[in-house]
Amino acid sequence: MPREITAFSNETVKRVRSLRDKKHRRREGLFLAEGLRILTEAEEVGHLPEILFYAKASAEHPIVQRLTAAVEDMGGDVIETIPDILHKLSGKDNPQTVIGVYAERLTPLKAIDRSLADIWIVAQSLRDPGNLGTILRTGDAVGAGGLILIDDCVDPFSVEAVRASMGALFTQSIVQTRWEDFVPWLREGPGQLIGTSLNTDTDYQTPVYDRPAFIMVGNEARGLPPEYEAECDLLVKMPMRGKADSLNAAVATAVMAYEILNQHRRA
Amino acid sequence: MPREITAFSNETVKRVRSLRDKKHRRREGLFLAEGLRILTEAEEVGHLPEILFYAKASAEHPIVQRLTAAVEDMGGDVIETIPDILHKLSGKDNPQTVIGVYAERLTPLKAIDRSLADIWIVAQSLRDPGNLGTILRTGDAVGAGGLILIDDCVDPFSVEAVRASMGALFTQSIVQTRWEDFVPWLREGPGQLIGTSLNTDTDYQTPVYDRPAFIMVGNEARGLPPEYEAECDLLVKMPMRGKADSLNAAVATAVMAYEILNQHRRA
Repeated sequence: MPREITAFSNETVKRVRSLRDKKHRRREGLFLAEGLRILTEAEEVGHLPEILFYAKASAEHPIVQRLTAAVEDMGGDVIETIPDILHKLSGKDNPQTVIGVYAERLTPLKAIDRSLADIWIVAQSLRDPGNLGTILRTGDAVGAGGLILIDDCVDPFSVEAVRASMGALFTQSIVQTRWEDFVPWLREGPGQLIGTSLNTDTDYQTPVYDRPAFIMVGNEARGLPPEYEAECDLLVKMPMRGKADSLNAAVATAVMAYEILNQHRRA
Repeated sequence: MPREITAFSNETVKRVRSLRDKKHRRREGLFLAEGLRILTEAEEVGHLPEILFYAKASAEHPIVQRLTAAVEDMGGDVIETIPDILHKLSGKDNPQTVIGVYAERLTPLKAIDRSLADIWIVAQSLRDPGNLGTILRTGDAVGAGGLILIDDCVDPFSVEAVRASMGALFTQSIVQTRWEDFVPWLREGPGQLIGTSLNTDTDYQTPVYDRPAFIMVGNEARGLPPEYEAECDLLVKMPMRGKADSLNAAVATAVMAYEILNQHRRA
């Protein structure tokens, strides 16, 4: 049976609220995801929350009923609560009707089987959680295998990144590693490392892209460091017809990923 | 000569601070842009701020000196200030060294010359300022003429949208109009209205795109209303290889815009 919590001072509420801070996420190994859509996508790929909050007013919603039953079957904690507490947990003015607390799911680099997908995305020092989540969402759309985070990327389990991923956080493998470990792993097997860069004249539609293709995207402000570009098998650029010389990092990744997907599906 | 302001209670500081609210932007017809990069891009296309704030510590920076001279020549207000006031104005923890206050620059629909560009972007009820700014930035990159906002889109002059546009706010024409006015205007001249939709089997790489192409993107959560889709000359969809069925709105717009640009540059 669900338990009911309506007090802000409740220990579970305080503990879950603290997961909006990275420090607490790291310590607990847990993160927050919100909304029927994202929680349903998680469930469809086999991920249930350890703790599920739902608004009392939504108790009869069929998806809420299915989720609560599934979480209870698994021995999880199901909590019926009030909109003000959902608001406090999510930080949004219009909180979602459900919030789930999930175990963080990072994949070790060595556990990645690159043959499972034709596209992988590599991000270096990406700082914007919205960009990170959007890249995960794009990765899901193009059938990528996962996102490999290098150097000091923003936390993929932040509330903003989870929100922007629209559930792709649960379908994409996520790796956190260092450049010194990534390069030897990459070179142990097949795979083409492709960087988008201003330091090239190669149009992104010119090369033939191998499988698997590893698309590497750099920091939003600085792009890729020179030594990272030097390691790339290909540097390419998109045509720029305006005054500016760059695209948003998530946009550039998507334009590149669809070019590779389009080549692969023609082949 | 620049004047120096170091008091939070200063009337100009309070007035400029209020421009973070849409209500005040509308009343004053002014908006904020921050950072040397964006202010320089604005200057390059002939836009100078009416008020320019710069950090005293950056007074010797050559770009700051060029900007202050240009704003003074134009009779604008140049203000030397302290980091705490720049922080208060921008709302960012690490404020930029310059903040400019610009006149809002909307273009009436009737003043748009569609023959000036091969791509135009139309957004309907777009709600996220980051998406709107990112779409402007992509529009600049693909050589679009501008962004036509339909229905209740988020304010293009919000601080977040200006920031995400990375200066493209100054290079792209921006129109705010209603669907009932847009459709008759569109049909007065050449132009293909293209919607991305789940309600079609047409792959986005199949059609031949005319010039000018009008790419229409819908609300982040709901997509385009059925009657808007019915008005489109083409409905297309991107391949989706994952669990989810959609892309971020700014990402979908960019993938579409690059496909059209690629077709046009091959032709």
